Amino acid sequence: MAPRSNYRMQKIPEMTIRRLSLYTRCLVQLEEDGKKTISSLALAERFNLNSAQVRKDLAYFGEFGVRGIGYYVSGLKAELQKILNLDREWQVALVGYGNLGSALFRYKGFARQGFRISAIFDGDPAKAGRTVDGVTILPMMDLAREVKARSLQIAIVAVPAESAQAVTDRLVAAGIKGILNFAPSRIKVGKDVRLKNVDLSIELETLSFYLAQATR
Amino acid sequence: MAPRSNYRMQKIPEMTIRRLSLYTRCLVQLEEDGKKTISSLALAERFNLNSAQVRKDLAYFGEFGVRGIGYYVSGLKAELQKILNLDREWQVALVGYGNLGSALFRYKGFARQGFRISAIFDGDPAKAGRTVDGVTILPMMDLAREVKARSLQIAIVAVPAESAQAVTDRLVAAGIKGILNFAPSRIKVGKDVRLKNVDLSIELETLSFYLAQATR
Repeated sequence: MAPRSNYRMQKIPEMTIRRLSLYTRCLVQLEEDGKKTISSLALAERFNLNSAQVRKDLAYFGEFGVRGIGYYVSGLKAELQKILNLDREWQVALVGYGNLGSALFRYKGFARQGFRISAIFDGDPAKAGRTVDGVTILPMMDLAREVKARSLQIAIVAVPAESAQAVTDRLVAAGIKGILNFAPSRIKVGKDVRLKNVDLSIELETLSFYLAQATR
Repeated sequence: MAPRSNYRMQKIPEMTIRRLSLYTRCLVQLEEDGKKTISSLALAERFNLNSAQVRKDLAYFGEFGVRGIGYYVSGLKAELQKILNLDREWQVALVGYGNLGSALFRYKGFARQGFRISAIFDGDPAKAGRTVDGVTILPMMDLAREVKARSLQIAIVAVPAESAQAVTDRLVAAGIKGILNFAPSRIKVGKDVRLKNVDLSIELETLSFYLAQATR
């Protein structure tokens, strides 16, 4: 395997990065099943992927296939985890500990991929001071100090729509570089901050489209 | 405007459908702001979209632009809502009323887009019988009967990974045609059922990639 160390992130489509996450999950599964090697075709067939797409996506980062063998499962998994920076643990700040915030805090998928919510902030004085699974909910006034003190770079925003922009501005001012926004509102950040809006109803809308088509 | 009534869903990329959802949101916003018409370029600039992409996506469904004017905001919004079948209310079943399930039940974004969770099922006998915001949590044994009786077509799965497949099989057997799965596990459905897996950690992984790149 010959990973490229000098790939330029600017040229890599975000969908490729999303698929790398998916491939990593597939490889973890194969490793658990005891598979040592797999061809790109077998990988594609087993997980319902497109094998040409798999090869194209991986080619951004290096030459991982071995002629006549395919991919070494553990080796490729480790390389992809390194590329995605999942070979480390990320400490994540969570702002908003309502229904959605508490569900996200307990969402098993984050911890499994190395994301640990280690700081929780909430504007409700009744919540501040409570400790959940070893993490103390802090008041909003502590946000800037704590984010800086812990050098946190990633934050999850799970506050009501109307306070999402104000919360985001405070996070960015405190040094947060990546934001996952669950508030159903459009928020803005500067160019040096990466923002991902998660809109759960878009998924239902695509279902709605296809279901209606089927009955037309 | 001349919407095409005979478009074939098979040829329309899913990303186009997702973007239609996004355009609809933008148009709702413009309508609220009192805008009557907008050019594709202005639409693109205002919402950070790609104007060529907007025109291409809309072209699957008809000719919506008017020379020298652009789009009629309310008219296009109504057309897109009709295409996405958002001009009706969808009754949705929710299976699993744990942390995530209860957060999804209260998620404002679903109702705003016409998705109403009107049936909740949970395997925990302690939860069955409780009523939340007018919806009674039902035991799993009632699932098939209720889904059929109410002709439900869409279900949200928010159960632990290990029971996701069994729950899905029961939903499909009861007649559900579209499933939004939040359980962190790969589940399988037949070809006549539409499945969307929501993996919240993939979003954090893309952030992780870009953040690490920035500091390399």
